[in-house]
Amino acid sequence: MPVQRADARRNYARLLAVAEEAIAAHGADASLEQIARTAGVGSATVRRHFPSRQALLEAVFRERVETLCAHARDLTGRSDTRAALLEWLSAVTADASTIRGLAIALTRDRANDPDAAPENCASAQLTEAGDPLARRAANDGALAPGVTITDLLTLITGIALATEHHPNPAAKANRLLDLAVAGLSPHQG
Amino acid sequence: MPVQRADARRNYARLLAVAEEAIAAHGADASLEQIARTAGVGSATVRRHFPSRQALLEAVFRERVETLCAHARDLTGRSDTRAALLEWLSAVTADASTIRGLAIALTRDRANDPDAAPENCASAQLTEAGDPLARRAANDGALAPGVTITDLLTLITGIALATEHHPNPAAKANRLLDLAVAGLSPHQG
Repeated sequence: MPVQRADARRNYARLLAVAEEAIAAHGADASLEQIARTAGVGSATVRRHFPSRQALLEAVFRERVETLCAHARDLTGRSDTRAALLEWLSAVTADASTIRGLAIALTRDRANDPDAAPENCASAQLTEAGDPLARRAANDGALAPGVTITDLLTLITGIALATEHHPNPAAKANRLLDLAVAGLSPHQG
Repeated sequence: MPVQRADARRNYARLLAVAEEAIAAHGADASLEQIARTAGVGSATVRRHFPSRQALLEAVFRERVETLCAHARDLTGRSDTRAALLEWLSAVTADASTIRGLAIALTRDRANDPDAAPENCASAQLTEAGDPLARRAANDGALAPGVTITDLLTLITGIALATEHHPNPAAKANRLLDLAVAGLSPHQG
């Protein structure tokens, strides 16, 4: 029945959105009961959509990666190519530092781990999505010579891993990204 | 007997030096038998000095941190304060990316983990040792405003973690450090 299906889709989307916020705030151990209550659905509905905590985490993870890729595509037409690239890198940094597992998945992928699960292609997806932004900025002379999208994503991955235990990971991570973008010691002695 | 004690000290120092190289090359799983052979001692000697693999790894780890701290003190008198700071940061990056556990210890310490083992004060030691180098460079205008030794060590920790699985971690990590020092996009569009 179309009405039920539409309801189920809305429930799913709301659950996912609430779960994203809860995971960003509380990490992978966010309370499923609290997520159900905030989304205004019963815990049976949560279990129907996400049979396990792992399933919920993977769905949030995939959704964030897809949103970041869509964000990159939206920004690719911008005339200020430096601002477009920096806006996207900042969004990736915020997600990598709050969505537990994203930064680790990025490290693993980058090493071409043969055991990587199929859904762990976040690195390849983000590299492909961000590459046009990096190239356009480089063509405008807004990127240091030789810097690739892989360099940028590896650095962001590292920043996210190093700030994971910080009281405010996203703020700390973005501060470090800004410093690296501007240069820690840009003066050429 | 002084002669025996001197022999034992020499054996210990040689074992530690060989173990450092082996761990840098092969990681924490470096062969203890190979380390004994390269150092020219029997495996009973290895076991006397290092009753377990963990004991050997901790000794190498402590030795590297002490060497880095001594290196910082040696550099503090240099007149080119920017070059002195960058030389030290590069040495920390090389060690953090090859001495398995150093980067992880740095993350944990930084979060003031109450469960941190007493020997895990690497972060505090390196922060204290590097602080004069960072302050001298900052006084000479060779550091971006507001950058602290904690920022620098956090960034290095992240770079080391993100490049851990790379085929040549030290080279990759130092390339990323250089990019962050000079600025990924220093142009203020």
